[in-house]
Amino acid sequence: MSVAMLVNGESSPLVRADDRGLQYGDGLFETALLVGGRVRYFDDHLNRLFSGCERLGIAPPEEQTLRTEVAKVTAGAERGVLKITVTRGAGGRGYRPSGSMQSTRVVGLHPFNPAPKTPLRLRWCDIRLGRNPRLAGIKHLNRLEQVLAQSEWREGEADEGVMLDTEGEVVCATSANLFAVRDGALITPDLRFCGVRGVMRAQVLKAAATLRLTVSEEPLWPHDLETASEVFITNAVRGIRSVASLDSLQWSETRVATRLANALSLSDT
Amino acid sequence: MSVAMLVNGESSPLVRADDRGLQYGDGLFETALLVGGRVRYFDDHLNRLFSGCERLGIAPPEEQTLRTEVAKVTAGAERGVLKITVTRGAGGRGYRPSGSMQSTRVVGLHPFNPAPKTPLRLRWCDIRLGRNPRLAGIKHLNRLEQVLAQSEWREGEADEGVMLDTEGEVVCATSANLFAVRDGALITPDLRFCGVRGVMRAQVLKAAATLRLTVSEEPLWPHDLETASEVFITNAVRGIRSVASLDSLQWSETRVATRLANALSLSDT
Repeated sequence: MSVAMLVNGESSPLVRADDRGLQYGDGLFETALLVGGRVRYFDDHLNRLFSGCERLGIAPPEEQTLRTEVAKVTAGAERGVLKITVTRGAGGRGYRPSGSMQSTRVVGLHPFNPAPKTPLRLRWCDIRLGRNPRLAGIKHLNRLEQVLAQSEWREGEADEGVMLDTEGEVVCATSANLFAVRDGALITPDLRFCGVRGVMRAQVLKAAATLRLTVSEEPLWPHDLETASEVFITNAVRGIRSVASLDSLQWSETRVATRLANALSLSDT
Repeated sequence: MSVAMLVNGESSPLVRADDRGLQYGDGLFETALLVGGRVRYFDDHLNRLFSGCERLGIAPPEEQTLRTEVAKVTAGAERGVLKITVTRGAGGRGYRPSGSMQSTRVVGLHPFNPAPKTPLRLRWCDIRLGRNPRLAGIKHLNRLEQVLAQSEWREGEADEGVMLDTEGEVVCATSANLFAVRDGALITPDLRFCGVRGVMRAQVLKAAATLRLTVSEEPLWPHDLETASEVFITNAVRGIRSVASLDSLQWSETRVATRLANALSLSDT
């Protein structure tokens, strides 16, 4: 499958070189799963995108325009990865954003490569995440830390890496949120300083409440993983994935992850 | 003057929408002054660019190719702002960089708007800089913190803003390095956690040594500015600019800045 792409509604794979997304990473993105011809949790993705625009002071695109463009690039496709990028817009030089800028939209459908559902082997990343509450939670385009993190191992050496922030708190995997079961309770980092509030993370928190699991969003430390009975990671495209190991730490338990995946009907994707 | 722009050597103002510069801010840039038809400190800018490529594991562009492209966009121009952007390249989705990627080059000449040389009015920025020694010093494309910082005041309300990191250390202005004179010695933040090692900053440090000034790169705190007898900021395009005030702090002294500007023959630009 080739990539279908619309830039500001035009069938073009090109953006202006003076786009602020390229100049400064001044924008946001969403990555969602297309399954059965429908974008899974589409409203949640759009809501996070619009809330990110508000946080960064970016003129939000028209919702109906975005929906129409998504319908166009996904037309006829059953399965794929939908990526939406919104930047502050093109033009000018210098950090100061012009007030009247029209945001840029890139909507593309990429191939979905299904992976075996076996529990994952994780490793600790060396690079830390800088703290910035002003950027925490949103899926902005400043992602060099994640790029460098994934450069720390060769494909096949590990499935994912766990990232700490500069003070040593556990934040997330490089492209997923992280959950642990400790003393029977489900815990996940509160992301007050960094990390992305994943769409699948929110679904898991909601499903856990429905299943009457004890849930806590809190500061997590490596010790919390060392004492966890089960660990899993979540991501909008890959769903819920149990973790078998994190360097020398090992887990064989997958019960909570399985219950949540069943509650969310993820097992068929 | 319109903007002359080359993308990978082609006379085009467009880049691929799947360029990693746009997707993740996965790249670097340089901004230099063209004066008298020559790029000021051109070698220093290229050196920082190449050292940034090495730090991020980006395939560096050929130096001769870059020089040729810069010669093309600056041909016939006396004065302007040269901007060079280099990204890891285009293609794919996901943070992991492919090993075989060819970097993208954007070389453009922008108008230079001379500003009056009166001492500047600065303000403290609310937004802090996240710490990350792995990204400190280089001029990478993850610049949302600077974008949000410059959004904190309207044009004309202040000339620049001073940024602290998340622990409260003084780092820089939003688009300039910062120097202070304290007890007769020149001090400047050591930038071990964040900030850009400016080309003009390096020139100032060199000139200060030649002038036998006592110089120290060290952790700076707001108290160091409160007790400073003189403050100035530096930037490759704007040179050395004396600071008159930082919110309620005021300085009338400009002697060290003037000596350094004379030593570097900046007064004629």
